[in-house]
Amino acid sequence: MNPRLYSFLGKQSGPWRVQRIVHVCGDTLPDVSHIELVAGSPDVPSVWALRGVTSNERYVERSEKTQLVAVQQGLGRPEASRAALIPIRKNAAWWALTQDERRQIFEDVSHHNAIGMEYLPPIARRLHHCRDLPEESPFDFLTWFEFAPEHEAAFDSLLTRLRATPEWGYVEREVEIRLERA
Amino acid sequence: MNPRLYSFLGKQSGPWRVQRIVHVCGDTLPDVSHIELVAGSPDVPSVWALRGVTSNERYVERSEKTQLVAVQQGLGRPEASRAALIPIRKNAAWWALTQDERRQIFEDVSHHNAIGMEYLPPIARRLHHCRDLPEESPFDFLTWFEFAPEHEAAFDSLLTRLRATPEWGYVEREVEIRLERA
Repeated sequence: MNPRLYSFLGKQSGPWRVQRIVHVCGDTLPDVSHIELVAGSPDVPSVWALRGVTSNERYVERSEKTQLVAVQQGLGRPEASRAALIPIRKNAAWWALTQDERRQIFEDVSHHNAIGMEYLPPIARRLHHCRDLPEESPFDFLTWFEFAPEHEAAFDSLLTRLRATPEWGYVEREVEIRLERA
Repeated sequence: MNPRLYSFLGKQSGPWRVQRIVHVCGDTLPDVSHIELVAGSPDVPSVWALRGVTSNERYVERSEKTQLVAVQQGLGRPEASRAALIPIRKNAAWWALTQDERRQIFEDVSHHNAIGMEYLPPIARRLHHCRDLPEESPFDFLTWFEFAPEHEAAFDSLLTRLRATPEWGYVEREVEIRLERA
């Protein structure tokens, strides 16, 4: 098994309780009361399961990576009792762009890394890719965030700012699942 | 199923007969006499199976893509009775590089796209990614080439030139399987 594979299980019990599911655009996901994040792809009962693989960064340049590594936090901090799972699918126009065009929209125009940097270290984040899985995946990316309750307003602000960028014009499906430790 | 998923089956019969398996570096693959390339990931008997997913290009810029699209050929040309399957694995140092560093080595230093362009349209090529599959894959990429017998020497030259580049310093496993239509 790929050690970078993770699954998000939508369930009626589990370590993270759903506060709300926000239907941002495209089809939403079936209602569940809890989410469990597990390594690999175990065959356990769930209402739905989304899986993705962490990978090398596609757009980060060395100067940005150096900054990121210096301040970003890992998952599982005791104070991080809030979380969010945001599955996203980008449209065909995005995937038809070349690497330089995607990078330009991502950073030069939309400042995705630069905006995200402003919210470090409080907001921890892990990106999972699903576009190149063997199954037809309903999403391209699953991003998981963890933060303390006092940083909830900052997290809301991060989402608002990113969704206002030209990059988000390429997002055709997005669901925001807000969570607290059960 | 992901429509971009393909499998290469090492077998004792099939549409492509193995001329030779060249052990370039790292572990080789078990001997087989034939290869079958199939869509998806069917559960059929084989000595070994490698699967990968075609995806958006990671390093091609718009100017290069425009040139490529204008001249590259698809698979399945009647005259293309020779083929090669080249599974490659790059080392951890490669994957620790950032996007700008990988692009610089790939193209600015090694001229990977520029060298490849010299061999179009005779050499048709399709790249499959396997690093981010759910299973632990023995390779990162599977590249499939098809060409007519009279372009065999050109294909050999292409391989020799690419293997002499700094990019190939990051290749830790490579097997070259040369084929002819059965």
